[in-house]
Amino acid sequence: MKAYIVGVGMTKFEKPETRDWSYGDMVREAGTAALADAGVRYEQVEQVPVGYCFQPSTAGQRAVYELGLTGVPVYNVNNNCATGSTALMLARQFVQGGTSDCVLAVGFEKMARGSLGGSGGGSGGGDFAASPVARHYGIMAAAHGFVNAPPTAQIFGNAAREHMERYGTTPAQLAAVGAKNHRHSAHNPYAQFQDPYTVEEVLAARTVHAPLTKLQCSPTSDGAAAAVVVSERFVEAHDLGERAVEIAAQAMTTDTDASFASGTCIDAVGAPMSKAAARQVYAASGLGPGDLDVIELHDCFSINELLTYEALGLCGEGESGKLVESGATTYGGRWVVNPSGGLISKGHPLGATGIAQAAELTWQLRGEAGPRQVPGARTGLAHNIGLGGAAVVTLLRR
Amino acid sequence: MKAYIVGVGMTKFEKPETRDWSYGDMVREAGTAALADAGVRYEQVEQVPVGYCFQPSTAGQRAVYELGLTGVPVYNVNNNCATGSTALMLARQFVQGGTSDCVLAVGFEKMARGSLGGSGGGSGGGDFAASPVARHYGIMAAAHGFVNAPPTAQIFGNAAREHMERYGTTPAQLAAVGAKNHRHSAHNPYAQFQDPYTVEEVLAARTVHAPLTKLQCSPTSDGAAAAVVVSERFVEAHDLGERAVEIAAQAMTTDTDASFASGTCIDAVGAPMSKAAARQVYAASGLGPGDLDVIELHDCFSINELLTYEALGLCGEGESGKLVESGATTYGGRWVVNPSGGLISKGHPLGATGIAQAAELTWQLRGEAGPRQVPGARTGLAHNIGLGGAAVVTLLRR
Repeated sequence: MKAYIVGVGMTKFEKPETRDWSYGDMVREAGTAALADAGVRYEQVEQVPVGYCFQPSTAGQRAVYELGLTGVPVYNVNNNCATGSTALMLARQFVQGGTSDCVLAVGFEKMARGSLGGSGGGSGGGDFAASPVARHYGIMAAAHGFVNAPPTAQIFGNAAREHMERYGTTPAQLAAVGAKNHRHSAHNPYAQFQDPYTVEEVLAARTVHAPLTKLQCSPTSDGAAAAVVVSERFVEAHDLGERAVEIAAQAMTTDTDASFASGTCIDAVGAPMSKAAARQVYAASGLGPGDLDVIELHDCFSINELLTYEALGLCGEGESGKLVESGATTYGGRWVVNPSGGLISKGHPLGATGIAQAAELTWQLRGEAGPRQVPGARTGLAHNIGLGGAAVVTLLRR
Repeated sequence: MKAYIVGVGMTKFEKPETRDWSYGDMVREAGTAALADAGVRYEQVEQVPVGYCFQPSTAGQRAVYELGLTGVPVYNVNNNCATGSTALMLARQFVQGGTSDCVLAVGFEKMARGSLGGSGGGSGGGDFAASPVARHYGIMAAAHGFVNAPPTAQIFGNAAREHMERYGTTPAQLAAVGAKNHRHSAHNPYAQFQDPYTVEEVLAARTVHAPLTKLQCSPTSDGAAAAVVVSERFVEAHDLGERAVEIAAQAMTTDTDASFASGTCIDAVGAPMSKAAARQVYAASGLGPGDLDVIELHDCFSINELLTYEALGLCGEGESGKLVESGATTYGGRWVVNPSGGLISKGHPLGATGIAQAAELTWQLRGEAGPRQVPGARTGLAHNIGLGGAAVVTLLRR
């Protein structure tokens, strides 16, 4: 049975401690927006997968309760930075398999300042290495000889250095990712940052771990996102065709021995997982990179946007620096990548990110994205990855 | 599509720090046993939901990796003490919906001594109230006026007091639950405790929170369990009919306002959730309590076994004390409840418990339970509940 997104909602992503809100408040805001967007009532929701990393077990029940739903099955799921899309993947499977006709996928994160140390947004050093999220990845990576694994900025920074050495990628090309995504977010009222920066300004920002500067790193963020996922028969029964965006294919891959065996940071940050997930989604949908119009991908650091261009097949191996510099991945180019501003500028509340990507694509594919609309967008792809780890790729189409 | 369990495995449940093992070691032991029991090979497993509460995000990937699987989708799920059955419910839905033909559900917990304070097994006071698992329930309960919410022994103990006042239930009837379950576990090599106790000995044990004594409380435990869940067509294609136990119905309910609104501890520990989940499962299967032969239910404290007799409809409201005393729920009676020894004597590693219940029922329904076999058992029911919270009821049959 085909599964469709018929409603999405999200909070503005915020620097932690900016708003006085609980995670329940966030989920109420995002969840009610998604239900209203779909025109779906509380009592139609049959199951609720809830994604988050930093709250205790059954926080999902509390969030769902705050939202106004009671009694329904709640699945508290986590998958590090790929948590949101993991919740979405459960929602899709419940619907696809016909065990439910209407599922609400929710993702949220309420983070402490500095809990993703080394990243941008003024969060300073922080103690990501000591966080539960980092701990496991650290164990995995350390077991394979990556002594400098967390904080993540180091391992991604080292992946950037490898890319520069191997392919001649330049600091300016990496900075072009930050400049593009900050520029895009100027038109996104949900983004944590909305100020545009030139490549020169991105290069001149504080260095987090060379070559990565602060304006090339996703910040620590609070926020929630939600999506209403329904079956084809639900779309028909409730005349929701105008709101419906099909989840045409979706795949999750997890780390294999190969992620660490090569000894390269490019592999250890999950590029092989992304490539494998993209390959599965292309095979399942019969589509390829040439069929995509708009892409939301996991630019936790600028280097990961470049690595993901290659993993998704937007360009050949080693050619991603030139691709971003050519303008092919912004308005007027072949694809628009991260029209929302991406993780770098929209923000990155871990559990929310994957669903927020789906929200942006839903708006884009419906033609509702306002000043950041990608003209004529019909097919979109979301890419969400978590160290430790999992990569989830989702293909959406109208 | 019908879903079947075709293989189960578990570790012996152990007092924490008894064995020198990682959670990966536990999962390798339980997972390889389940795959061997089913005769299923690694490469046939398509997806892996993994349940646990006390480890960081993506610990499931690490566990699955230790088990020998790489690359497959992993869903890290938690639902407090109902975590294991939540993972099982995902496995069933993946298969039922036809999105996978072979799924491995895994649950594990590696706990610190005393992390479930107030409970038995010599763990002493502990600091459950400060644990992530307790924190959310504490918030929920405190918001509704339950100032003494965690540690859990208090709120369950207070539920026992309510039951005594309201229905005339006696301390000896509560103790009879502990005596029965400890007696059952004497025949279970996987149980943490294997010593039988008389009702008098149970009554004379150290008081945790009156009327509950240590021998009526589940201990803190380490352990893992796994189940291979496959589709009808997989059973046919691989000639697994002899191994197959059908998951005939399954339901999860979560806390509603009513759980707290009544102001009673009986409601606040989730009895209404259990009742609602049982009702859904009976409706879906067309079966009732009279059709059951063997039951594994969530006796985290003796009072919860009594409350669950009533919620499942084994007896009328307030009659559960008399029911256990009559011998109706042990060998030779109408049902055998907790032949494994239950949580009280088998142990309670949070993420493993729900899957271990399914493992016990699978052995019972196949006639493989050895000296603790329930004669002629054809239909079994598992009941797993977590404060905060969720109740999952599963009906299995041959």
